[in-house]
Amino acid sequence: MQETRFIHIAQQYKAVFFDSYGVLKNYKGLIEGAQATLNHLRDREISIRVLTNDASRSQEQQADSFARLGLSGIHPDEIVTSGMMAKHFLEQKIREGKIAYLGTENSAQYILQSGLEHIAVRDIDLEDLDAISAFVFLDDEGFDWNIDISKTVNILRRKVIPVIVANSDRVYPVSRNDVSIATGGIAELVENMLNKKFIHFGKPDSQMFIYAFDQLNRSVTVAKEDILMVGDTLHTDILGGNRFGLDTILVLSGNTRKESAANLIESTGIIPDYICPSIAL
Amino acid sequence: MQETRFIHIAQQYKAVFFDSYGVLKNYKGLIEGAQATLNHLRDREISIRVLTNDASRSQEQQADSFARLGLSGIHPDEIVTSGMMAKHFLEQKIREGKIAYLGTENSAQYILQSGLEHIAVRDIDLEDLDAISAFVFLDDEGFDWNIDISKTVNILRRKVIPVIVANSDRVYPVSRNDVSIATGGIAELVENMLNKKFIHFGKPDSQMFIYAFDQLNRSVTVAKEDILMVGDTLHTDILGGNRFGLDTILVLSGNTRKESAANLIESTGIIPDYICPSIAL
Amino acid sequence: MQETRFIHIAQQYKAVFFDSYGVLKNYKGLIEGAQATLNHLRDREISIRVLTNDASRSQEQQADSFARLGLSGIHPDEIVTSGMMAKHFLEQKIREGKIAYLGTENSAQYILQSGLEHIAVRDIDLEDLDAISAFVFLDDEGFDWNIDISKTVNILRRKVIPVIVANSDRVYPVSRNDVSIATGGIAELVENMLNKKFIHFGKPDSQMFIYAFDQLNRSVTVAKEDILMVGDTLHTDILGGNRFGLDTILVLSGNTRKESAANLIESTGIIPDYICPSIAL
Amino acid sequence: MQETRFIHIAQQYKAVFFDSYGVLKNYKGLIEGAQATLNHLRDREISIRVLTNDASRSQEQQADSFARLGLSGIHPDEIVTSGMMAKHFLEQKIREGKIAYLGTENSAQYILQSGLEHIAVRDIDLEDLDAISAFVFLDDEGFDWNIDISKTVNILRRKVIPVIVANSDRVYPVSRNDVSIATGGIAELVENMLNKKFIHFGKPDSQMFIYAFDQLNRSVTVAKEDILMVGDTLHTDILGGNRFGLDTILVLSGNTRKESAANLIESTGIIPDYICPSIAL
Repeated sequence: MQETRFIHIAQQYKAVFFDSYGVLKNYKGLIEGAQATLNHLRDREISIRVLTNDASRSQEQQADSFARLGLSGIHPDEIVTSGMMAKHFLEQKIREGKIAYLGTENSAQYILQSGLEHIAVRDIDLEDLDAISAFVFLDDEGFDWNIDISKTVNILRRKVIPVIVANSDRVYPVSRNDVSIATGGIAELVENMLNKKFIHFGKPDSQMFIYAFDQLNRSVTVAKEDILMVGDTLHTDILGGNRFGLDTILVLSGNTRKESAANLIESTGIIPDYICPSIAL
Repeated sequence: MQETRFIHIAQQYKAVFFDSYGVLKNYKGLIEGAQATLNHLRDREISIRVLTNDASRSQEQQADSFARLGLSGIHPDEIVTSGMMAKHFLEQKIREGKIAYLGTENSAQYILQSGLEHIAVRDIDLEDLDAISAFVFLDDEGFDWNIDISKTVNILRRKVIPVIVANSDRVYPVSRNDVSIATGGIAELVENMLNKKFIHFGKPDSQMFIYAFDQLNRSVTVAKEDILMVGDTLHTDILGGNRFGLDTILVLSGNTRKESAANLIESTGIIPDYICPSIAL
Repeated sequence: MQETRFIHIAQQYKAVFFDSYGVLKNYKGLIEGAQATLNHLRDREISIRVLTNDASRSQEQQADSFARLGLSGIHPDEIVTSGMMAKHFLEQKIREGKIAYLGTENSAQYILQSGLEHIAVRDIDLEDLDAISAFVFLDDEGFDWNIDISKTVNILRRKVIPVIVANSDRVYPVSRNDVSIATGGIAELVENMLNKKFIHFGKPDSQMFIYAFDQLNRSVTVAKEDILMVGDTLHTDILGGNRFGLDTILVLSGNTRKESAANLIESTGIIPDYICPSIAL
Repeated sequence: MQETRFIHIAQQYKAVFFDSYGVLKNYKGLIEGAQATLNHLRDREISIRVLTNDASRSQEQQADSFARLGLSGIHPDEIVTSGMMAKHFLEQKIREGKIAYLGTENSAQYILQSGLEHIAVRDIDLEDLDAISAFVFLDDEGFDWNIDISKTVNILRRKVIPVIVANSDRVYPVSRNDVSIATGGIAELVENMLNKKFIHFGKPDSQMFIYAFDQLNRSVTVAKEDILMVGDTLHTDILGGNRFGLDTILVLSGNTRKESAANLIESTGIIPDYICPSIAL
């Protein structure tokens, strides 16, 4: 597949869905040229949404974070997170009891503000699980892995309740070379110990795409073929975009490196419509 | 979980989504009481949709099939199949070339009527794959498993193209005790041989739920909490319904038997909101 | 399958291989009747071996531990551990460099006393991996899970070296109801993050059985059909014993409970030749 | 890793274990230079064994097949097959009833000549399974895949019996580019449908290595470090050899091609001690 310039492709669409990490920003800060590209799209009245597998922060906190990095003009309403999907699920399906969680207090306050009480794994008494009505994996921080992961296994061995993974990403990059195990990776460990599958939220599943698509169509009329999904990861952004019926472009500024892109596309069979170095004009 | 009468639950909703096999019909014919239940729901102006993992027949053929079994009053537009999702995907994403398929000629004509040519695996020349632009698993019938499954592996080893599984079900029941390997099971075999993941359509993925939800809301206004999903299979109907945010009821007239339901719910962690023997009043 | 008395079965064999945890001892101490059963077997000159998935302690330390619990007469040479298998592998296959490890310093001293240097993950400089020639998962204790598991992922992303899992058990019981994630579970998490498979030691693999069988036959002549394997876990003790060609007996004093044994045998298809409540006479 | 000449490495050992397909022969016939290499090893009194994942033919039939291809001097006793391991298992563990099988009549006669009756899947009456005491996957030929694979699933859903896979290979090459699904692939499909794991025989498991090692040591004294394992497949020959403690050499004349070898070693983490183009001198 030939590499192309991002803007040559993007300006053919009425809306562009961006992944966040590896596309708009990375471990060093903003991706070079991100502001110019956003401005260019705004000038042409191309709608923008950011779809991010993240459950640690609210839309407002995400928008603030972009602003602090120097990327202005992203409105909280233009951000769609996997945490929002988990939040909606919990609001609709869990009507009583306490929601147990693994993650930071900040993520718990944001996601679990649904009228129900929440309780951190560390504060749970294994002998008194009666009030616990659901369990949520929220973040990879905010707890002691040595103690609380095994404790989670035991809670879920003792009581059958809905278990939600608010961010299905297994790792996230922390530097050019290195990664850290993410919420989805920890949830997968617990799934394997229990031999169960939890309810995962986040790309590649369709929910965030539907949400963004429906919300966008409340202000403008945009068909799926009018939307370009931009991502740096084949098995989340590109697979999810393809399956939802969007055109997809792989950027080489994040998880997928130029030298291994062709091999990965071949070995996974997940095929973007376009490839470009980054979103820089 | 207490078993309840289906209708006591169903009449609290504005719309009911039914799985087909194991819920409305089975290997012997119609589920006893299906017509009376449908009539009862119609009388109360409760909307109905049938969501079925099936890519072998069109909506019209499915509706005819219900009528022939003696279930009247299901309109083709009320039926949503995984094959329709695959068809939409192909129309949006594949714009040239020939679509290779494994399945019956009938399924191919229905799914692949998108202006593109289609070609059965048996008719493909392994030395001339240039024109093949996508591959679809359509049905478990219509080809020679001894020859065509390995040939499929070799086609997909030689050429990297999008691969679609139009029905992700792995088995289907053929009698009270026995099953037959279905399209999704054959696709999984090929995935394992290639160490790749294809694009699967069908419950538990959200696409069919979105489609039914959006189409329903064109005629009436129905929120997710107004919809009951009825299914006989935990990991497709109930998981998919739960994840999409619907209330769910497990019927014990199909894949899940009364004597093993509690064990299965515990071992899978997929929890329906209600359980009932069947949809009979 | 009918339950029988252990000794009625055991006294028909020339040798008995015991799993340790759940068979000879558990979280409360010795299994009731263990000493009497051992004495009975010794009186009849039936040979004994203990095969345990454990890499945290040497044979001498294991024997001491039995003695401290009150079980006398188990000689260090009668104990076979998965750690010994890992130790032999490292001695034969790794001839230079430093062996990196995740585990306690005690386990490292025992397993890695092969003339090569060893280094804990916490002490490794990610920018200086030149000297690291192999990696071993030794124990679930002795390191900070929050930091060192992700660091392990990054070491193994940066350098391709043989990776050994010295104990393939995924969990171990810590009380009647609860478990703790074991070495094999942590290794599996890292395998999943890297999408690789490491070299695992421990039942059900054949190595420990071969070792015990060969070592036994240096003093007495015993065929496989003369040996009974006793275990509490289907997918390690019983599967491994069956596959090596031994007769197997499942005891219900550990991982597998009386009320779920029949279900588990059916669902796994791992079938012991006999079942008994415990090894008590 | 540097490529070396095979014989420079091989002549440092007292014994050489060869994989068959891709090492000694391939779809075109003998690997060029095989006879000269074997003669050279014989002249230096280096012992030879052939370890092959195959359950379709006896040792004598395998030796005849080498002779017909033009490779003389391989004695039946020097050949170790996964089928032999399955045969021993059945002889030791199954003492009554009929053994059901999927495969050719030739393979059944060879493997199942243990005094017990055998019966092909096609001849089994699903309503009369009382006499069936075990099931064996023997070969990918000799049955109708469209009918007999689903029938196998139903037999094993109805009756819990030991299930043996006499050749764990998932595919075998049929030409330079193409493969055919093998016994292990079909068994894996059935395992996935049943959500069970069967007892698999064949590399990388240790059994064939133990057998060859023990049998060799009846005539000469050879330690593990005196043996070189030669294979064309990382996850069977090289992984199995490494784990058993042998030195290993990857040949590029079969499954693993020169252009992808380095990538595969990196991605799997299965590391041979040496690499060479083929066994030609």
